[in-house]
Amino acid sequence: MINQTNVHLGNVRSVIRELFEYGKKRKAEIGEENVYDFSLGNPSVPAPDEVRAELVNLITNTDPVALHGYTSAQGDFSVRKAIADDLNARFKTSLSADSIYMTCGAAASLCITLNALLNAGYEVITFAPFFPEYSVFTAHAGGTLKAAECDKNFQPDIAKFKALLTDKTKAVIINSPNNPSGVVYGENTVKELCAALKEHEKKTGNRVYLISDEPYRELVFDGVYVPFIMNFYDNSIVCYSFSKSLSLPGERIGYIAVNSAMENDREVFAGVCGAGRALGYVCAPALFQQLVKKVLGKTADISVYKANRDKLCAALTEYGFEVVKPDGAFYLFVKSPENDATAFAERAKKYELLIVPADSFGVKGYVRISYCVSPQTVEKSLPAFKALAEEYK
Amino acid sequence: MINQTNVHLGNVRSVIRELFEYGKKRKAEIGEENVYDFSLGNPSVPAPDEVRAELVNLITNTDPVALHGYTSAQGDFSVRKAIADDLNARFKTSLSADSIYMTCGAAASLCITLNALLNAGYEVITFAPFFPEYSVFTAHAGGTLKAAECDKNFQPDIAKFKALLTDKTKAVIINSPNNPSGVVYGENTVKELCAALKEHEKKTGNRVYLISDEPYRELVFDGVYVPFIMNFYDNSIVCYSFSKSLSLPGERIGYIAVNSAMENDREVFAGVCGAGRALGYVCAPALFQQLVKKVLGKTADISVYKANRDKLCAALTEYGFEVVKPDGAFYLFVKSPENDATAFAERAKKYELLIVPADSFGVKGYVRISYCVSPQTVEKSLPAFKALAEEYK
Repeated sequence: MINQTNVHLGNVRSVIRELFEYGKKRKAEIGEENVYDFSLGNPSVPAPDEVRAELVNLITNTDPVALHGYTSAQGDFSVRKAIADDLNARFKTSLSADSIYMTCGAAASLCITLNALLNAGYEVITFAPFFPEYSVFTAHAGGTLKAAECDKNFQPDIAKFKALLTDKTKAVIINSPNNPSGVVYGENTVKELCAALKEHEKKTGNRVYLISDEPYRELVFDGVYVPFIMNFYDNSIVCYSFSKSLSLPGERIGYIAVNSAMENDREVFAGVCGAGRALGYVCAPALFQQLVKKVLGKTADISVYKANRDKLCAALTEYGFEVVKPDGAFYLFVKSPENDATAFAERAKKYELLIVPADSFGVKGYVRISYCVSPQTVEKSLPAFKALAEEYK
Repeated sequence: MINQTNVHLGNVRSVIRELFEYGKKRKAEIGEENVYDFSLGNPSVPAPDEVRAELVNLITNTDPVALHGYTSAQGDFSVRKAIADDLNARFKTSLSADSIYMTCGAAASLCITLNALLNAGYEVITFAPFFPEYSVFTAHAGGTLKAAECDKNFQPDIAKFKALLTDKTKAVIINSPNNPSGVVYGENTVKELCAALKEHEKKTGNRVYLISDEPYRELVFDGVYVPFIMNFYDNSIVCYSFSKSLSLPGERIGYIAVNSAMENDREVFAGVCGAGRALGYVCAPALFQQLVKKVLGKTADISVYKANRDKLCAALTEYGFEVVKPDGAFYLFVKSPENDATAFAERAKKYELLIVPADSFGVKGYVRISYCVSPQTVEKSLPAFKALAEEYK
């Protein structure tokens, strides 16, 4: 028998992927413009113009042996230095190039970090709703994922979180701005969470690492402040990806930043290097390492996402839906007007609306609308949402 | 405690990496041109011109949302189709796009394949000398690596191999052209190996998968024939990388091909997809997927490597060294004139020659010379090799 866990993972399609495949079929039947596909978190805004210019510049004017050659396993020194300097300038941290490990995107950042930290039988806590692959990544690293509930505004409920802490807890994953709720965890919430972890360590001697999964950091609207975890907790690790901020999701480029204020930061960084090696990540793609150095601080034009959010929030509220107003990312979390969100999402298909029931994100009774689509799609979808709402009146 | 296996892996430098770091220091002291660094397998020949042209073309003329967007997890369909068609044309196989899974290079190909196949406690057999990371990759997937000896020409010794087969053996890894010996496994050897596996399955009911790790397939000289494993054994999987053939080692692009003649090829392919997911490989870098489709069949100018090989083989033989004449890759395997290859490599440093003792490749008494360097480095190194030889006369 070969490994049936992985065979199963390869065979089961996620709910999102099922819906996406349905959408492809449906578009072929009735025309792309007549299906309102809000299923995937795939950016619709192109990468900023500087990306194209810098890529052509790098490819045209750099020695190809140097440009496409191996970098060191943790990434090119100058790239890591630039990222550390940028973070220090923005967040008053004291990171160095050796705090940064370049990765093939957010999923790689998380897998490597979890494999660095976990031994078999360890536990990881996150907050529901959460990205479903957290369970897969944690399980592969030998651990078990537990999810704490959030309050009604989808902020972590710290009392419920505390009840899940055990002597096997090794890490906590937070994701803010959150996929799928779009909520940004507030500073008070973050402070309470960190206080709970410090208290737990004091009481039990068990150090818990706080992993901040933040591919959506730059995707916030109206100047909302996203607390930077290293400013609140020494034993913290940031898992970043340029996928969403630069609209480069297929290029697989991101990083892990290990807080230099951590007592054993060298041990954790070595664990990251070792886990990257054991998982087969030789180095992050070399051309895109150089690219992100050149365009640090740039983002795709996120005003499109803000306009989509505002239009959808206003319209859906007007039609009678209950929505969680998102501060960031490009997801809108909507309360299902019937208890069963899967039934609601199924009914939405009648109106060619593809929306994802949030059950697989660990929360029942909600759907996720990915509004990283064109403004035209949003505009054209509104009558469909209105008609769907009518069914529940 | 965090995961000490990975901390250890992150902290220990390989012998090769130690030597490379020593070389960097030494070059700073006495000048780059005075150190003959044969330590690393980093191609010195640039990517073919078509790579630069096609990259600029793709970046300039493709919609960036499509070009840099997520592909499906197994890779872009048209890319996989092109690779399957190319393999079918070259090797008379019957692969389809769904036999191919695009990866972040050879290490990723191997890790994903091993995680697809192995359960805890399974065994993997390879042939010494072998790439040391095979042990790391196998251990992470829960298995144990055993190495069978080769004969004096560094061809697998099938009798010794058979003695290692057990009911826990799940996979065999071969690497031809071989790193570090440069030897190509002959057709007879491959046939005997496959016969042994078929006999084992018949006798015990235990199916063993043959994994061919072939980043050096295109790097062969004098028209030497490299048997294509799928022509000899149904339960076979090819792990390929474009790193060496296209001189793109930092870009992390390769693939896994699962033999469509395999009875349970859909199960194994699902296992590959699931393992990729569990290890955090969302998709292979999108731009380089499109790139390799455009330049399939092209290679960097490997005549440079052939010239280096011929010059080094002739000179070292003349000086009295015993060399294994390589048919491919860019490594020369040389018998140490003293029993302790590490002592020999240490002595070579006196002459500014950086060569790798092969102990970590599972063979004692040999050193590896990576001749993917400039012809000037080879030329200038010859008096140093001559002086080193004199010490042993």
